[in-house]
Amino acid sequence: MHFFDRLADRISAADSVVSVGLDPDPDRLPDAVRDADLPRWQFNRRIIDATHEHAACYKPNAAFYEDADGWRALQETIAYAHGKDVPVLLDAKRGDIGNTARQYARILDGEDGPAADAITVNPFLGRDSLEPFLQRAEKGVFVLGRTSNPGGADLQDLELATGEPLYERVVHLADLWNENGNVGLVVGATNPDELESIRDLVPDIPFLVPGVGAQGGDAEAAVEHGLADGVGLVNSSRGIIFAGEDSRGDFFDAAGQSAKQLKRRLNQFR
Amino acid sequence: MHFFDRLADRISAADSVVSVGLDPDPDRLPDAVRDADLPRWQFNRRIIDATHEHAACYKPNAAFYEDADGWRALQETIAYAHGKDVPVLLDAKRGDIGNTARQYARILDGEDGPAADAITVNPFLGRDSLEPFLQRAEKGVFVLGRTSNPGGADLQDLELATGEPLYERVVHLADLWNENGNVGLVVGATNPDELESIRDLVPDIPFLVPGVGAQGGDAEAAVEHGLADGVGLVNSSRGIIFAGEDSRGDFFDAAGQSAKQLKRRLNQFR
Repeated sequence: MHFFDRLADRISAADSVVSVGLDPDPDRLPDAVRDADLPRWQFNRRIIDATHEHAACYKPNAAFYEDADGWRALQETIAYAHGKDVPVLLDAKRGDIGNTARQYARILDGEDGPAADAITVNPFLGRDSLEPFLQRAEKGVFVLGRTSNPGGADLQDLELATGEPLYERVVHLADLWNENGNVGLVVGATNPDELESIRDLVPDIPFLVPGVGAQGGDAEAAVEHGLADGVGLVNSSRGIIFAGEDSRGDFFDAAGQSAKQLKRRLNQFR
Repeated sequence: MHFFDRLADRISAADSVVSVGLDPDPDRLPDAVRDADLPRWQFNRRIIDATHEHAACYKPNAAFYEDADGWRALQETIAYAHGKDVPVLLDAKRGDIGNTARQYARILDGEDGPAADAITVNPFLGRDSLEPFLQRAEKGVFVLGRTSNPGGADLQDLELATGEPLYERVVHLADLWNENGNVGLVVGATNPDELESIRDLVPDIPFLVPGVGAQGGDAEAAVEHGLADGVGLVNSSRGIIFAGEDSRGDFFDAAGQSAKQLKRRLNQFR
């Protein structure tokens, strides 16, 4: 089943376009899991238990799984999310060449364990660097288009000789690379006008919109422009998984409440 | 000790600017290590034994260490290279934002094990995405400038409104970001003219030049333009570590011979 079809089904089943970012910062894990074997996995499991009814997908960021136990925690997390029938988008922002690109793409195959259903990639090295991902037609490939961080402007806003900013060219390239219908775009929510202008360029490509929640993006614009035929994702990571830090009740209940609130907030605009 | 000072010492001690890429493709490991515990680490150890006299640095590519045992194999590899007094440059091409960028940079700290001495990074997300790396003033940060793969042209050659190609702007930005004197650039060797023009822009920044060896770049140009005050790296990965596939003798001896030959070939032009 192709990723965007699977995602459409999940969005329908959960009545939600919320992507829950699983970024288990080791400095912020609650005591309840800190001393467990594979504390990140225990943390993610309890977050998934608390939030899965409201999750269109889970988005672990690879940065939080890069150590001796990390890959195992990531694999257990993917398997557990699948057990709740929620797809997993690995936020890896990978981009490399030749045999290294092929090697990175193996996480989509599940030869060594559970496979991610989609991945984020960086376009700076061009088409052949993304080919091993694009070729896996049933997997989703979200190309970084316009990111929401301050430095995003350093390269992405540069004006080309043709008059367009670099990020618009990247968006056109992503459209060109979408021969298998499996390409998405990562577009930040901090500038609603940009989000709208990018949507006008590619009416049919689903967006992953980060920056709602901890980064304070515009929820209405994220939904209005982020979805293509109803399919797309609006992500919150810390705003959901660490909601319990500011709660007097149960840490994980607070994550569930936060996911539910974001779902409702976004559903107002769907 | 700052990375480029350490690298200068090593270049002097080994009389070599060869970077040996440790990309232990699981499909190409020889029988001698295939059934070992941590076969990649056993492979790398024997490669390091055979090549270290000729190595200015080792460059493991993170793509080959992304599975349950991978990080441990990488850590053992870093420790073993350090035991031979050879610095390690992790070819990770990372680029992410905020707390994820900070998390990726931890591999330079050695909190959870041996630390890499330098890393490659992707500039597409701009300065704040690289700040956690740049801040670690004793560590080397090699920014992707102009890559040697076919798709490198897709973005990097785009002409800006100012008339310069995008990669030149990236080179200028890298120079701007070099407040701690710890920035290098990754510049492919497949186009010697480009290598020369980039060197003219930034006379003092050491380059990591991949693409000599398996990718068939120009060794003379790589040395002539890649070094800044004698410091820089010319990488070969498969051309060294899998040289034994075409040899009738010992697999690892062939790697040592290949590293020695590349060292001599490059030293003609130093």
